[in-house]
Amino acid sequence: MRLKNKPWANQLIDDHPEAALDRPDPEVKIDWDSRFAKKQPIEIEIGSGKGQFITTLAQQHPEKNFIAMEIQKTAAGIILKKKLDEGLDNLQILCADAANLVAYFGQNSTNRIYLNFSDPWPKTRHEKRRLTYRSFLEEYRQVLTADGMIEFKTDNAGLFAYSLKSMNNFGMHFDFVSVDLHHEKEEIVAANIETEYEHKFASKGNPIYCLHADFLDKDR
Amino acid sequence: MRLKNKPWANQLIDDHPEAALDRPDPEVKIDWDSRFAKKQPIEIEIGSGKGQFITTLAQQHPEKNFIAMEIQKTAAGIILKKKLDEGLDNLQILCADAANLVAYFGQNSTNRIYLNFSDPWPKTRHEKRRLTYRSFLEEYRQVLTADGMIEFKTDNAGLFAYSLKSMNNFGMHFDFVSVDLHHEKEEIVAANIETEYEHKFASKGNPIYCLHADFLDKDR
Repeated sequence: MRLKNKPWANQLIDDHPEAALDRPDPEVKIDWDSRFAKKQPIEIEIGSGKGQFITTLAQQHPEKNFIAMEIQKTAAGIILKKKLDEGLDNLQILCADAANLVAYFGQNSTNRIYLNFSDPWPKTRHEKRRLTYRSFLEEYRQVLTADGMIEFKTDNAGLFAYSLKSMNNFGMHFDFVSVDLHHEKEEIVAANIETEYEHKFASKGNPIYCLHADFLDKDR
Repeated sequence: MRLKNKPWANQLIDDHPEAALDRPDPEVKIDWDSRFAKKQPIEIEIGSGKGQFITTLAQQHPEKNFIAMEIQKTAAGIILKKKLDEGLDNLQILCADAANLVAYFGQNSTNRIYLNFSDPWPKTRHEKRRLTYRSFLEEYRQVLTADGMIEFKTDNAGLFAYSLKSMNNFGMHFDFVSVDLHHEKEEIVAANIETEYEHKFASKGNPIYCLHADFLDKDR
């Protein structure tokens, strides 16, 4: 969802080029390792919103580095504030469009891409904007390592059905599927990190859909 | 679900060998074409219950032949009664276990298999009994023609998630997916034929899941 513009958030991003990149030139390769305190495996969330998911993940996993990709500058600023407040050395913010993923990250650069509650773009004429459209899947395939995986969650029935079909038709292999994530076995529910939106939506009793899928056919 | 035993149903089956086969010997090939009034394409429902779905389909499509496969003799007898009452020349009843499908139907003998509200067998140790377990998928693959398809519906979230994963992992290609079939576009809802169970369940506001999938890799 679109947030009300917050000037402090924009200013915070401008003041912290070491922590957040604001629409970097896709022609210039980014040296991600050098932007983190330690060189460790990198995981990427595309469309982080206000960042509850990715900041929690970064707290729980100091042994990994995380990149929150978020096109809305106000939202990106809110994530940046959390990063600074909580001293998360293993989190970087990239304020940019997902369309050019390979340019920003390079081939085989991550083993996990998270897509949480992406915009469903329900109209057929907007199919190409959905983050599980085949052009995006092709980008993910390149950016992911051979054993890499996409973890996708949504509350939108139409987007979930579309994504199942799109990923299956693309030749992806399903590792985990749920049409009611919050009522799975205890250990699955306990391991789930909620986004802000997910918490609000699920508390109304609505189902959360989840799919983990990889590219089995990827060149190794 | 298991029905109370009705002696009249058992008797009716015994009285109508021309319309219903009761646990035929899998070693003896069945000449299905000769059992129908006309030679036409054959479609099969596995687990027909009391037959609301398959009898409606047979009424709507006189240009096709249908086989209701149902292991419970009482349920099979109820379907047989409907067939006789409604004069459905294009419907046959097979009271038998789905485990030996190829023996009953032969290779490439149908272009449509319907699985409606199959027993979910939720316990992990019963996985092999689920009608979307890979041994059943292998049977369907053989019985279906190259352009054949499985149409699967369930209200069970666990069985649906399992089936999506099982069919995807088997290499099947998804043609249609819905996690809320009764709230799809008007033309999809209008074309859907409900089972008895589906009608009761959906009227409580619970979602119906649906998947149509084929075997793209099938030898042609």
